[in-house]
Amino acid sequence: MIAVIITARASFAKFETILEHLPEVRLYLCGSALLDHYGNLQPVVAQKFPQMEVVPVYSHMEGGLPVTMAASAGQLTTALATHLHRDKPRLVMVMADRAEVLAAAQAAANLNIPLAHIQGGERTGSIDDRCRDAITTLSQYHFPATRLAGLRVYNLTGSEKIWVTGCPSIDVAKRALLEPPVSWQELSGAGSDIDPHGPFALVVQHPDTDVWEQSFQQMTQTLRGVSNANLPVMLQWPNADAGTERISKAIRMFRNYHPTVAIRTLPSFPPSRFLRLLSQARVLVGNSSAGIREGSFLGVPVLNVGDRQRGRERGPNVVNVPYNEQAITEAVKRQLAHGPYASSGLYGDGEAGKRIAEVVRGL
Amino acid sequence: MIAVIITARASFAKFETILEHLPEVRLYLCGSALLDHYGNLQPVVAQKFPQMEVVPVYSHMEGGLPVTMAASAGQLTTALATHLHRDKPRLVMVMADRAEVLAAAQAAANLNIPLAHIQGGERTGSIDDRCRDAITTLSQYHFPATRLAGLRVYNLTGSEKIWVTGCPSIDVAKRALLEPPVSWQELSGAGSDIDPHGPFALVVQHPDTDVWEQSFQQMTQTLRGVSNANLPVMLQWPNADAGTERISKAIRMFRNYHPTVAIRTLPSFPPSRFLRLLSQARVLVGNSSAGIREGSFLGVPVLNVGDRQRGRERGPNVVNVPYNEQAITEAVKRQLAHGPYASSGLYGDGEAGKRIAEVVRGL
Amino acid sequence: MIAVIITARASFAKFETILEHLPEVRLYLCGSALLDHYGNLQPVVAQKFPQMEVVPVYSHMEGGLPVTMAASAGQLTTALATHLHRDKPRLVMVMADRAEVLAAAQAAANLNIPLAHIQGGERTGSIDDRCRDAITTLSQYHFPATRLAGLRVYNLTGSEKIWVTGCPSIDVAKRALLEPPVSWQELSGAGSDIDPHGPFALVVQHPDTDVWEQSFQQMTQTLRGVSNANLPVMLQWPNADAGTERISKAIRMFRNYHPTVAIRTLPSFPPSRFLRLLSQARVLVGNSSAGIREGSFLGVPVLNVGDRQRGRERGPNVVNVPYNEQAITEAVKRQLAHGPYASSGLYGDGEAGKRIAEVVRGL
Amino acid sequence: MIAVIITARASFAKFETILEHLPEVRLYLCGSALLDHYGNLQPVVAQKFPQMEVVPVYSHMEGGLPVTMAASAGQLTTALATHLHRDKPRLVMVMADRAEVLAAAQAAANLNIPLAHIQGGERTGSIDDRCRDAITTLSQYHFPATRLAGLRVYNLTGSEKIWVTGCPSIDVAKRALLEPPVSWQELSGAGSDIDPHGPFALVVQHPDTDVWEQSFQQMTQTLRGVSNANLPVMLQWPNADAGTERISKAIRMFRNYHPTVAIRTLPSFPPSRFLRLLSQARVLVGNSSAGIREGSFLGVPVLNVGDRQRGRERGPNVVNVPYNEQAITEAVKRQLAHGPYASSGLYGDGEAGKRIAEVVRGL
Repeated sequence: MIAVIITARASFAKFETILEHLPEVRLYLCGSALLDHYGNLQPVVAQKFPQMEVVPVYSHMEGGLPVTMAASAGQLTTALATHLHRDKPRLVMVMADRAEVLAAAQAAANLNIPLAHIQGGERTGSIDDRCRDAITTLSQYHFPATRLAGLRVYNLTGSEKIWVTGCPSIDVAKRALLEPPVSWQELSGAGSDIDPHGPFALVVQHPDTDVWEQSFQQMTQTLRGVSNANLPVMLQWPNADAGTERISKAIRMFRNYHPTVAIRTLPSFPPSRFLRLLSQARVLVGNSSAGIREGSFLGVPVLNVGDRQRGRERGPNVVNVPYNEQAITEAVKRQLAHGPYASSGLYGDGEAGKRIAEVVRGL
Repeated sequence: MIAVIITARASFAKFETILEHLPEVRLYLCGSALLDHYGNLQPVVAQKFPQMEVVPVYSHMEGGLPVTMAASAGQLTTALATHLHRDKPRLVMVMADRAEVLAAAQAAANLNIPLAHIQGGERTGSIDDRCRDAITTLSQYHFPATRLAGLRVYNLTGSEKIWVTGCPSIDVAKRALLEPPVSWQELSGAGSDIDPHGPFALVVQHPDTDVWEQSFQQMTQTLRGVSNANLPVMLQWPNADAGTERISKAIRMFRNYHPTVAIRTLPSFPPSRFLRLLSQARVLVGNSSAGIREGSFLGVPVLNVGDRQRGRERGPNVVNVPYNEQAITEAVKRQLAHGPYASSGLYGDGEAGKRIAEVVRGL
Repeated sequence: MIAVIITARASFAKFETILEHLPEVRLYLCGSALLDHYGNLQPVVAQKFPQMEVVPVYSHMEGGLPVTMAASAGQLTTALATHLHRDKPRLVMVMADRAEVLAAAQAAANLNIPLAHIQGGERTGSIDDRCRDAITTLSQYHFPATRLAGLRVYNLTGSEKIWVTGCPSIDVAKRALLEPPVSWQELSGAGSDIDPHGPFALVVQHPDTDVWEQSFQQMTQTLRGVSNANLPVMLQWPNADAGTERISKAIRMFRNYHPTVAIRTLPSFPPSRFLRLLSQARVLVGNSSAGIREGSFLGVPVLNVGDRQRGRERGPNVVNVPYNEQAITEAVKRQLAHGPYASSGLYGDGEAGKRIAEVVRGL
Repeated sequence: MIAVIITARASFAKFETILEHLPEVRLYLCGSALLDHYGNLQPVVAQKFPQMEVVPVYSHMEGGLPVTMAASAGQLTTALATHLHRDKPRLVMVMADRAEVLAAAQAAANLNIPLAHIQGGERTGSIDDRCRDAITTLSQYHFPATRLAGLRVYNLTGSEKIWVTGCPSIDVAKRALLEPPVSWQELSGAGSDIDPHGPFALVVQHPDTDVWEQSFQQMTQTLRGVSNANLPVMLQWPNADAGTERISKAIRMFRNYHPTVAIRTLPSFPPSRFLRLLSQARVLVGNSSAGIREGSFLGVPVLNVGDRQRGRERGPNVVNVPYNEQAITEAVKRQLAHGPYASSGLYGDGEAGKRIAEVVRGL
């Protein structure tokens, strides 16, 4: 049995095409992946993979503060350890760079269970780099997305067990392009009615954990900057992280103070719905990796705000701006004038999941 | 205030000369550092640093199994997080490579407290390498012991905050040479009466966590191999780790089955007493890093058994042998024939603690 | 030093008059008492008791589910144990009946620290009774609010260390009557503008943990029932408990579906402000104990909805109704017709805090 | 599915005859029940109930101190909660009075899973009484051993769900009488060779958690007192509790200082083997409940030392003595002179397990 650990809604999207090609998997849903507020994955998994065994591992301490992130990480290691010990998988798979993923990796490493890491070797320039590299050093098998990331993994580990497969998120983006666009009925959420077939800006901004105390101010700048461009705004609630509550507060206050701005808050979407919506957006604004990764494949114009993704390899569709109202307004206008970009293969060709599953089956 | 995290008796020895030169320190004693069975550090600290503030953080789950190591690590992260949040240090200092140290590093990283790591960049060839590198990637300030280790830290982090200071364990070894040898009265422990001024072999063998299930067999081979050389044997109980209970069992059974072998089990010694005893030993047998590190400075003949230290830089005083009775017996005889080696500066000159404290005061 | 453990905003109100008469206290703020969402007590304490030592103990797992309540309770026991061990209080004080309080009591009992329990011996008819009695059996000193409660404590414990002091919540209510009424400026919160000097209904409904799955439906019935009476509605977000998220959802949906109903959601208030507001309300509707306890002293007409308080001793100001829209509407109308009730001394005379502090100082 | 929670070796013995009559059980082995040092139950269960599903829940923090007991209890609540949530039993069964059992009960209570408690309502006069009563107040179904205990449970809970079934430990004792006596080959352990068919005293002394700091002194008095009677001594290592390490130290030191006393330390025995050995002993000395419970049925002369069992109902076979060398020596001699007592039905007739299983099947 292979244990796939998922600690956040975003990871499941990227695991999906791997899971389609991988039998004998048990899914460990941990931390915020179980919480309604961040997009409970249990119903999603039940629908997509009705036969999948799912183990819920509650470990997320409320607070959105560094201390609760740290305590949650420890709790995850402890709780996951007893479940993995009970179930004895032959391999543990983790993805990306969050503190919870490092916590899961630590459980596997201490249990002497071989660990496979997807999306190692990237650079974003934030604290996530340290976590991501720590996960890489704890892992035996590596599936980086790009060749440059692969080189960094080799540099960190000296390992020969590195396969550059592209990023499975591109698999999802590729499929999203084949599906019908998101309709009004699919939108759900709360706030203004916005037609997803018409022009709109999509805002996805998470706390920058290096400077999480500024989260309120940063989100306020972004919301003001985007709304100046006179485009309806759709936005998603932020990830569970230090600073989350401040961003949520900025959103609620902006809404209260600017009742005439067309703004709609969206719940956590199933990933493919999110990518379809992304491909419909005139512009993505924020600091989500989706703009840089899937956005490069989809050719969506992106404003990457602030330093959260500062070191990430990026395609031509991305413009960088600081957390500054005026700079954001101007850049939004430029991207709107440019319109869609050509698709880039930087982060993969849409077959990553199949490749990873093939390698893993043979391990 | 600077938080110094200690998770095992061995680390305190190495922190001692740093602490002597560093004011405003609070000591967090975690995990097995609080347990009588592994050498409770509380009385030691109270004696050496009577003014030192000490925070006890109990987190060690009993069992000596991978699952309890993993659960202990998580518990340490969670518990330490609430204490560090309560106390708000400006810097956290950790040492070496154990899973508990990684757990502590994770607490600091999640709390956004700058992290200083001593003894990064080394290679032992075991699972500890992965932990050590993970700690390095999470740290901002680095104090590797050797130039080669410094290069590895640079390779992992690209950081400029690396100071090659030598290992503070050499500071302790240097002082130990100035003190009178360990007398019979200081020995304590249980078993045969052995004169520490006469010839004896010192055995210190910890579980090799990569193959911890073989710990019983490995210890039995070592004990047989050493006892064949007709030298009285002093030995220490192993570290708290997966496999510990098996080693303890091997010791107890060997003693019961070989009542005529002169064998004495020693409790956990204050580090300087241990190093004095080490300098008195005709030969050190086992897989402790002390033989390679402090041993190189002290010039003690060492048998390094098995793979636990396989990648570590070593001086001319070390002979490598497998966990094999006959090979051990022969190598012990060869080292006895050779006698003491010349002192090597590979791991430092005995001034590391002072240098580290100086840098840290300025951070 | 005496350790006062607070796990929810409501307890602090009741501890306040005790703390005024008790020197050498350290306050342990645990679980939801630290969370903005439930009324972070840190700024409140800093303002009221600027000299008070406060230890924050994060332990609240997000989810609002039984499993997260259980995991939070365990986490609280573990985390609090290391802090109490570090600080070595001579007495631990806890209040009331929540699962987190039992968790705190267990930490103290295991540490062999004498435990004082306030508000034992009551009956509400819910799962809280079991928790409350368990806390009582773990405690050595008892401060029940009423004589009947005192008899129940004696029956449970056979102890002679029982002092019937009245409930300190009445102390707060007594003071609230001396202060000016809550003004529009003090209201904060979100939603309709409601004049606190004019007529309004106050709604405070927490999950009934015995049937927490019905929380959404129950809250919907209450909101409909109250709004039918054509009175503006002020309401508070529910406690952190299994079912909380469902109540929050019911509130949000009711607001969206009934845009014409004058409804205002209030943040967690400082307790005295809440009691002043309560004394201004034409009627309190819900299942908070405040209606029965402080309400009896204040003479506020109360609708006690459902079974959450079913066993609690009550004065003449309370009318019981099921979670049923029509029944609630009718009972609201009857209470409005009746108007204010005479003050009752059932739960105390407003001097409980002073009495408890006096006894505790002598322990 | 019914969840049976076992937190110590002793409980399994008592659950055995229940399990024989109860299908669809899953066994949760927690805390010290998984540790070699205290008698790992995993191989025992595998042998007796090869089909039984076993879930290992590691939660025991090492240290033998109040702080580690408290932290272990919290850890058990948290870890067990996630496993019970994963498995969704329809009933949870717990036994007796230890802090870990209360921790398990709290997990079940918070999860709203009905809880059955065996052996409630007894009195021992120690801190265990408080734990036991707290467990009773949290439980819905009660299986006390004696009529007096049943009355106490009724007094605590007012519940009608009380069945006085006798204690299942008597079931085991009844069977033990039908089996051949313990032979020399079955003894194992370490120390002097003692013939189990000849005369010997059995010593089983656990820490008295109310005064755990005196554990070393207490054990020393007992060992001296018994050894003065010139009878070979068999003894068992103590339970995992605050004070355990001190008792172990007392045993080791006594052995070292009195090399001529015939003394044998026994590992944790399978319960039936222990009861067979008990029935062979000339006298049982210590503070184990076994002397009072099973001993009354077996008619074994017992010295109950100290206050750990002070409130327990007892038969004529028990003599009480303080932790005093001389008093113990004299009482041992008197009991040896008296010889075996007649069997008493106070704690049951040997059919308790069958009765409990019958009731539980119908719940």
